[in-house]
Amino acid sequence: MKIGVYGLGRFGSFWAESLSKAGCEVIAYSRSAHEVPENVALVSEEEVLKAPYIFFAVTISAFEDVLKRVGPMVGKDSVVLDTCSVKTYPSKWMRTYLSEDTYKIATHPMFGPDSGRNGLKGLPIVMCPISKVDERYQMVKELFLSMGLDVLEMSEREHDEEAAYSQGVTHFVGRTLNQMGMTSTPIATQGYRNLMAIVEQTCNDPLQLFYDLQRYNPYAKEMRLTLQVAIEKILNRLAKEEDKL
Amino acid sequence: MKIGVYGLGRFGSFWAESLSKAGCEVIAYSRSAHEVPENVALVSEEEVLKAPYIFFAVTISAFEDVLKRVGPMVGKDSVVLDTCSVKTYPSKWMRTYLSEDTYKIATHPMFGPDSGRNGLKGLPIVMCPISKVDERYQMVKELFLSMGLDVLEMSEREHDEEAAYSQGVTHFVGRTLNQMGMTSTPIATQGYRNLMAIVEQTCNDPLQLFYDLQRYNPYAKEMRLTLQVAIEKILNRLAKEEDKL
Repeated sequence: MKIGVYGLGRFGSFWAESLSKAGCEVIAYSRSAHEVPENVALVSEEEVLKAPYIFFAVTISAFEDVLKRVGPMVGKDSVVLDTCSVKTYPSKWMRTYLSEDTYKIATHPMFGPDSGRNGLKGLPIVMCPISKVDERYQMVKELFLSMGLDVLEMSEREHDEEAAYSQGVTHFVGRTLNQMGMTSTPIATQGYRNLMAIVEQTCNDPLQLFYDLQRYNPYAKEMRLTLQVAIEKILNRLAKEEDKL
Repeated sequence: MKIGVYGLGRFGSFWAESLSKAGCEVIAYSRSAHEVPENVALVSEEEVLKAPYIFFAVTISAFEDVLKRVGPMVGKDSVVLDTCSVKTYPSKWMRTYLSEDTYKIATHPMFGPDSGRNGLKGLPIVMCPISKVDERYQMVKELFLSMGLDVLEMSEREHDEEAAYSQGVTHFVGRTLNQMGMTSTPIATQGYRNLMAIVEQTCNDPLQLFYDLQRYNPYAKEMRLTLQVAIEKILNRLAKEEDKL
């Protein structure tokens, strides 16, 4: 299976490497000179857009402009897939800026270089069909399964709602605790050590990913409000308990 | 070494069992009928208070009243230790309600039945000397070391400040996310799974422990304010990013 990866940022490089390890022939294009994984051929923008399967691995906030510009250059028979951490908007952009004839699949590999460090086995990947499901969709699904991934199929909205209250809240907590200046301490409980690991992992990802996860997920605002309400409730209950002293 | 454990709640039972496994002769007293660990002898309140070493394992909020009542019953040569998750107030109460001649040590085993499930090796325990350090203090320290614990010696205030920003923040985050109604989802990222484990572990502890960790730690209020300020900052930054769309 010949695959083009458009964008070799932190996730793109990891994804290109993973696909290559899974036996795919991987070509990749990157605007800037990043580290190119072994067995991945760096090619021109024109060439990557002619690959039979093209994974876009660009930041959510850049994706619309990229599609607008390169949409007309995509190969007539190429299958286009995104890897964005939100799904409603990117799917809409793919529908808008790619030819009606282009076969489209929205995906979200729910892992990255950190969580996938020890292999991909059992890690979840979401697939949202955009074009009518046919053998091209099945081919991709088979590829993911052969990589040991746990394939979850759902609509873009279902994904975004679930993701806001899982990945979204995790990144929000990680960034908040990092903002608090949390550091390691010799008296750390096991729970605190685990919390520190979450801070480290979420803050290892680009800050742009954090903003985009929150801005481009239609359910993120509601999630943040729910979090604020929960904090208020806990603080009120604590205030009542303190009054008892 | 003969040890009395006063209180057989969730932590007290675990602690009595751990001491017994470490080779101590353990007697215990409990107001209500709890499950008594193997090799631990259930005795009367009078008897437990005559043990050479007495660990109090009662809730923070009950400790002052218990000490007030049983202080006069403590054996003349008994060494008294607490196990509270905060140290400033309990140390003060021990100074106030126990005879000046009673040898006192404040301790905080920074683990519980969940985090200590797979053994105590390497887990931290804090010791704050109240009475002048002598061979009795050394005996206890040696016992802890023989259990594989990581003994950390510091003042009550140092402990409380560090604990507010580690154990305190962990429990606050766990309770908040639980209040949000966080549940497992098939699309959980590794980070979210780790966060769920923290929620589970902190909410497994009695609610009273959560309140007491926050009410009786002189630094907890400041910690909560710092957390609220951090959330505000993140939300403001997000609002600015959203304006850019």
